[in-house]
Amino acid sequence: MSPDAQHSEDRVAQPLRSDAERNRGRILAAARRVFARDGLGASMASVAREAGVGIATIFRHFPTKEGLVAAVFADRMDAYADAVVVALEDPDPWHGFTVYIETACAMQAADQGFADVLTTNFPTAKAMEERRNEAIAGMVRLIDRAKATGRLREDFDTSDLVLLHMANAGVVSACGDSAPDAWRRVVALFIQSLEGPARGPLPASPDHDALHKAMRRTGPAGLTTPEPDTTS
Amino acid sequence: MSPDAQHSEDRVAQPLRSDAERNRGRILAAARRVFARDGLGASMASVAREAGVGIATIFRHFPTKEGLVAAVFADRMDAYADAVVVALEDPDPWHGFTVYIETACAMQAADQGFADVLTTNFPTAKAMEERRNEAIAGMVRLIDRAKATGRLREDFDTSDLVLLHMANAGVVSACGDSAPDAWRRVVALFIQSLEGPARGPLPASPDHDALHKAMRRTGPAGLTTPEPDTTS
Repeated sequence: MSPDAQHSEDRVAQPLRSDAERNRGRILAAARRVFARDGLGASMASVAREAGVGIATIFRHFPTKEGLVAAVFADRMDAYADAVVVALEDPDPWHGFTVYIETACAMQAADQGFADVLTTNFPTAKAMEERRNEAIAGMVRLIDRAKATGRLREDFDTSDLVLLHMANAGVVSACGDSAPDAWRRVVALFIQSLEGPARGPLPASPDHDALHKAMRRTGPAGLTTPEPDTTS
Repeated sequence: MSPDAQHSEDRVAQPLRSDAERNRGRILAAARRVFARDGLGASMASVAREAGVGIATIFRHFPTKEGLVAAVFADRMDAYADAVVVALEDPDPWHGFTVYIETACAMQAADQGFADVLTTNFPTAKAMEERRNEAIAGMVRLIDRAKATGRLREDFDTSDLVLLHMANAGVVSACGDSAPDAWRRVVALFIQSLEGPARGPLPASPDHDALHKAMRRTGPAGLTTPEPDTTS
C-alpha cells in the first residue's frame, strides 16, 4: 500500500526531496503500527520513537495529528466505503446488508486506530470525511433495499450502525488479545436482532445531531491540535 | 448511604478517631464523585484534590487503590447482586431475566466507575469478589429458568452477559452526555436477539478463562498498585 495515497491531506504540490520522502514513508508506516496497537490516543512522540525520527520531523510532514491520521487511514477508509459498494451489488439485499456489517465490524476489530476513526469526526480532513459521507449515503440505500424485502426490521435507523460500532469497540477493546474473536458473537446477535419482523418495539433512536456530537467527543482529546514541539 | 459500609475492605478493628473518620467519609464521597465521572482510571491524586486532603491522608486510609474502589462501590455491588435475587423471585422467568439485564445495564450506564467495576477483577478485594460470585451464581439460575421456558435461546451462555456489559460500556462511554439514553436501544436490541427460538446459529462463545483474563486486562493499569506518594 503506497504511503503516497492520492487523498493524503497534506500532499505537497512539488515533489519532496528523496530523503524527505523516505522520512514521510517511515513516519506513515510507524504511525500505522502505533495507531493499530494503541488507537488514535497514541502521541506524536510515540510515533516519532517508533519511526526513529525526531518529533520536529513529524510536525514538518504533518503539522496536525489529524493530518497524520487522515494520511495513515486513507486506504482503510477507501476499503470501508468500497465495502458498501460491494454490498449494494449483492442480488440479495439482506445478505448484502449483513455481510457489510460483518466486514465493517471486522475492519474495526482488526485495527484499534481504525476503530477510533470510525467513531471520530475529522472536521479538517476533507477527503476522509467525503469518503465517510459516500459510505453513509451508500448505507442509506443499503438499508432501504433491505427494508424493502422485509428482512430488515422497519424501525432500523442508520444511527443503529453507529451504535453497533460503539458497542463493538467496547467488546474489542475489553477483550483485546485474550478473546480476539468474541466480537463476532456480539455482532451475530445484533444482526439477528435486526431481522424482521421485529420481536417488539424499541426505545427511540438518539437524535442524530446528538450522536454526531457524541462522535466528536469520542475522539481522543486534542486530536486536531498540534502537540507542543518538545524535542527534535 | 453510609461510607462505613460493613464490607469496606480496609475497615480497621478499633474505632477511628473522629477527625480520621471525617476524613475517611470525605475521601469516600469524593472518590464516588470522581470515579462516577472519570471511571476507575482516575488517579488517587485527583481523588485527593476533590476531597481537599493530601494524598498521604488517602494512602493512610486506603493503602491501595483497589481497597478504595472496593469501599466506594460496596453498596453498588450489593445492589447489583440484589437485582439478581429480585429477578429470581419473578414468577415469569423470561420477564425476570430481561428486567435484570435492563437493571444491570442501567447501573452500568449511570456510573462510569461502576461500569469499570463490572468488567474488572479485584483479586485482593475479597468481599467485592464474593458479592460478584453470588451474583454470577444467581445469574446461572436465572438463565436456566429462562431457558426452561423456551423464551431464552438455548445457546445463550453466561459469558454473553459479560460481552453485553462490554458492548454497553462502549456505547455509554462513546455517547456520554450527548446521547445518554442511546444504550437503552442497544440493550433492547440485544434482549430481542436472545429471545427463542433463535433465528440462526452463533459463533462459539469465547473461552471463559480467556474472557476472565480479558476482564483482568480491562481494568486500568496499576489498579492494585499503590501510586507513588508524591505529595501530602
